[in-house]
Amino acid sequence: MSAHPAKNSHATEHAGTEPANKKQKKDEYVLYYWGGIPGRGEFVRLAFEYAGVPYTNMQDSAKLLPTITDAAKCGHPPHFAPPALKLPSGRFLSQTPAILNYLAPKLGLAGDKEGEEAELERSSINQLVLTALDLTNETHDTHHPIASELYYEDQKEAAASRAKSYRKNRLPKFLKHFENVLATNPEAKTHGGAYLIGSSTTTADLVLFHVLSGVSYAFPKRMAALEKSGKYKHVFALKERVANEKAIKEYLASDRRRKFNNNGVFRHYPELDGEE
Amino acid sequence: MSAHPAKNSHATEHAGTEPANKKQKKDEYVLYYWGGIPGRGEFVRLAFEYAGVPYTNMQDSAKLLPTITDAAKCGHPPHFAPPALKLPSGRFLSQTPAILNYLAPKLGLAGDKEGEEAELERSSINQLVLTALDLTNETHDTHHPIASELYYEDQKEAAASRAKSYRKNRLPKFLKHFENVLATNPEAKTHGGAYLIGSSTTTADLVLFHVLSGVSYAFPKRMAALEKSGKYKHVFALKERVANEKAIKEYLASDRRRKFNNNGVFRHYPELDGEE
Repeated sequence: MSAHPAKNSHATEHAGTEPANKKQKKDEYVLYYWGGIPGRGEFVRLAFEYAGVPYTNMQDSAKLLPTITDAAKCGHPPHFAPPALKLPSGRFLSQTPAILNYLAPKLGLAGDKEGEEAELERSSINQLVLTALDLTNETHDTHHPIASELYYEDQKEAAASRAKSYRKNRLPKFLKHFENVLATNPEAKTHGGAYLIGSSTTTADLVLFHVLSGVSYAFPKRMAALEKSGKYKHVFALKERVANEKAIKEYLASDRRRKFNNNGVFRHYPELDGEE
Repeated sequence: MSAHPAKNSHATEHAGTEPANKKQKKDEYVLYYWGGIPGRGEFVRLAFEYAGVPYTNMQDSAKLLPTITDAAKCGHPPHFAPPALKLPSGRFLSQTPAILNYLAPKLGLAGDKEGEEAELERSSINQLVLTALDLTNETHDTHHPIASELYYEDQKEAAASRAKSYRKNRLPKFLKHFENVLATNPEAKTHGGAYLIGSSTTTADLVLFHVLSGVSYAFPKRMAALEKSGKYKHVFALKERVANEKAIKEYLASDRRRKFNNNGVFRHYPELDGEE
């Protein structure tokens, strides 16, 4: 349902590429994603920002899809939708979880195990990323339950029903899961930090941080009530911890960080929110 | 929305474990998934069946969730939902794409490249698997657009709207993508076979095969019309090719293959289907 922007997502898009930071070099990573929204590209940006690895945003909507869907331009296999990442070698990779699983060991975001244990740790991180992205999809579908090609206004009634179920059942179920993961992490206990796995920041932590930020933007009343319940202390501690990691803190304060808005995955429609 | 069975999914579940085949050994792979339906567990089963690697199904609903959500029983990190795979080492891994990405090189389903090229190939396969599973999710959501905890009968109107958009826009969009991938695969051309990537069967081929089978079960009229259009020849050739791979052909004819039914991910409601 969600691997593409909604109909009006390009509204505030900037054309062309923009440098991610001053260290940018030619032939580095290039992220192909819509401009004007954090969107799913943000999960990839956060990994680069945390690691301090330069990347460029390619967000020219006239070239974006024609490039990544044409094997003559992007190589084989072509892609279904952005985000797609052009690697320094020129090869393209798409699908947020596939991009993150590829990058994680290269960016130091796949834990600190070695040999076969490293592969297992990376797979568990992949698992956690996928579950956090499932929550992203379900959050998106609260405002687009019927058809991604229609406007929200054309599916408001179904959206209200889906958001009600999301607030009451699905969102707490996901938070309970991540609280369980965080509270039972034996390595985080000894280090006193809120890490989903191991005792260092992984792509899973960054993805969960962004999903929680997005859900807080979209459903502020519900998230405030869930935080106040005291049932998800580790989850909200992770959100706080990641926001204050040096590189992330700097990024969030920079103009590289895009603001959430109602063209994106996470949208705030007051009528869909509620304390319960 | 879809990483869990719908409310009535356990109806035809069989309790306990069942041997996958006679080569089964202790301490081999154990797949934790609901009984009675192919479900998302089927994507994992097909990989084992193709590779001829023994596995066991653990589908005792009284033990399933209590085991995989309790870190004291399944180790850290615990899981959100089945399928979860218990590895021979005793470690558990969940999330279909994470399980398949872990297994692919071990089962000879990750292509034939070496070194860094193997990692890139594996990542592209992961990408293709994820897109095919996105189609699975969208197919599921045609019958459960509002809430997974409600019955289909309680969301029929929204389901009709979503299914209409799915038949007209989303399903053809996915088929067009996979046709594009298959038609532009340079290695498949030289070998004359319908392979998504490279010139041997990968997890991506197996996943797409099962999704196409499921969609054909759920939307027989629409799929017949799409096949008749002649626009997706490579896609339907892949479905045929995989169905006739020796190990898969034997498996499909065996009693290990579960039948699609209306408790699963892919459901046939005649009122949701149509030629257009």
